[in-house]
Amino acid sequence: MGTVYLVGAGPGAPDLLTLRAARLLERADVVFHDALVHPDVLALASRARKVAVGKRCSQISTDQRFINRALVEAAHRYDTVVRLKGGDPMLFGRAHEEIEFLKKHFIEVEIVPGVTAALAASAELGISLTRRGEARSVAFVTPRVGEGTRGSSWIRAALAADTVAIYMGAGEGAAIAAALIEAGKPASTPVAIVESASMPDTEVTCGTLRTLPGMGRSSGGPALILLGEVYGEAVAAAPRDLRKASQSA
Amino acid sequence: MGTVYLVGAGPGAPDLLTLRAARLLERADVVFHDALVHPDVLALASRARKVAVGKRCSQISTDQRFINRALVEAAHRYDTVVRLKGGDPMLFGRAHEEIEFLKKHFIEVEIVPGVTAALAASAELGISLTRRGEARSVAFVTPRVGEGTRGSSWIRAALAADTVAIYMGAGEGAAIAAALIEAGKPASTPVAIVESASMPDTEVTCGTLRTLPGMGRSSGGPALILLGEVYGEAVAAAPRDLRKASQSA
Repeated sequence: MGTVYLVGAGPGAPDLLTLRAARLLERADVVFHDALVHPDVLALASRARKVAVGKRCSQISTDQRFINRALVEAAHRYDTVVRLKGGDPMLFGRAHEEIEFLKKHFIEVEIVPGVTAALAASAELGISLTRRGEARSVAFVTPRVGEGTRGSSWIRAALAADTVAIYMGAGEGAAIAAALIEAGKPASTPVAIVESASMPDTEVTCGTLRTLPGMGRSSGGPALILLGEVYGEAVAAAPRDLRKASQSA
Repeated sequence: MGTVYLVGAGPGAPDLLTLRAARLLERADVVFHDALVHPDVLALASRARKVAVGKRCSQISTDQRFINRALVEAAHRYDTVVRLKGGDPMLFGRAHEEIEFLKKHFIEVEIVPGVTAALAASAELGISLTRRGEARSVAFVTPRVGEGTRGSSWIRAALAADTVAIYMGAGEGAAIAAALIEAGKPASTPVAIVESASMPDTEVTCGTLRTLPGMGRSSGGPALILLGEVYGEAVAAAPRDLRKASQSA
């Protein structure tokens, strides 16, 4: 029986893959990969059959149950089965469902961590998520807009933490801003949206929670929304027309 | 004038370095590195002068101002200066201070993100930080024990988020447990401590917030404290004697 490796492909740039992930891909027999994985990363898996399972920003295009069953079947046929996920598998990657299913079928699972999008976005911006004495807590959340602000852990965490990284929130800027402002997050909280972090077509837009509804989403790539006082300097340094555009939004 | 690269060395295992970091080290002229960076990682920098700046778990052993000045001086002498930090530079890495100082001296800075400890610890445990429908927010915090529970963002974030990763909290388990329980976090919250995540001598200890004061710290390596209902199954699956030991603590 083979082993299934749940492998983080990192934030996008192929050279932000780990050495371990690269070596595993080189000896993989089959690779089940998300839609957003870079072709140069897939090219490392020269021996492997590649199966696109089509997730994009964690929206399901291939049924999770199909993926689970395909991994089990592959582990019966091959030694080295790689499940390659964007970013890191253990943070908003639905790894839990795959691990549980594989273990129930007595299949060995190993996890290879990866660089998550918030860290690549921070590198892109040149602004640390934390700052000694000023920002000592970071919330990584994914919004469920429309479920109400009470009892919603993503909102509570986003209110409490000094810095907030919102995954899979692009395209829902208006609803996110409304929910957070209603819950008491200051409308003046600085915001940076980083699209396609680590990729050549990366784009950064800066503003505030108030202007978030009119910000970003030019490239259509995956986007991360960052909130917090640490982004104040980025907002202040943004080109004047950009600030105007987002202030008038 | 040279460029200073702030590079994440990842959580410990040398093959969890990124390809980009490995290539940079190979062409580095000088490397300023934290104490915990693996010797095999430093060995990649075969051309470089290596300078240990001795930080360990973010405790300062080399004065930050000395590091800042040394980086500026190196950028005047060399093309490729690498500042190699454990984990990721932008999460509890004091990168902000180095970036600000370098920019003030008109020195080009590039950040290379890395795999942060919480992701390696999650891979070690085989338990995802998030779980669809159940855990949608993760707080990454570093405690400042003894500053009181009111107005303390690490405590507020740890109360609000479904899952919590506490960096640089090892050795302060008793104070952390007391502060969180006093602030209202249930004493029954499952806890996992992962020491030396990704390394051969990694150790996992499971318990609850109530038993945290008696847990972990056997290896003396860097340790991450994880809290949240997602660790409930790990606590339940822990060997009987371990549970007993931590329950009697």
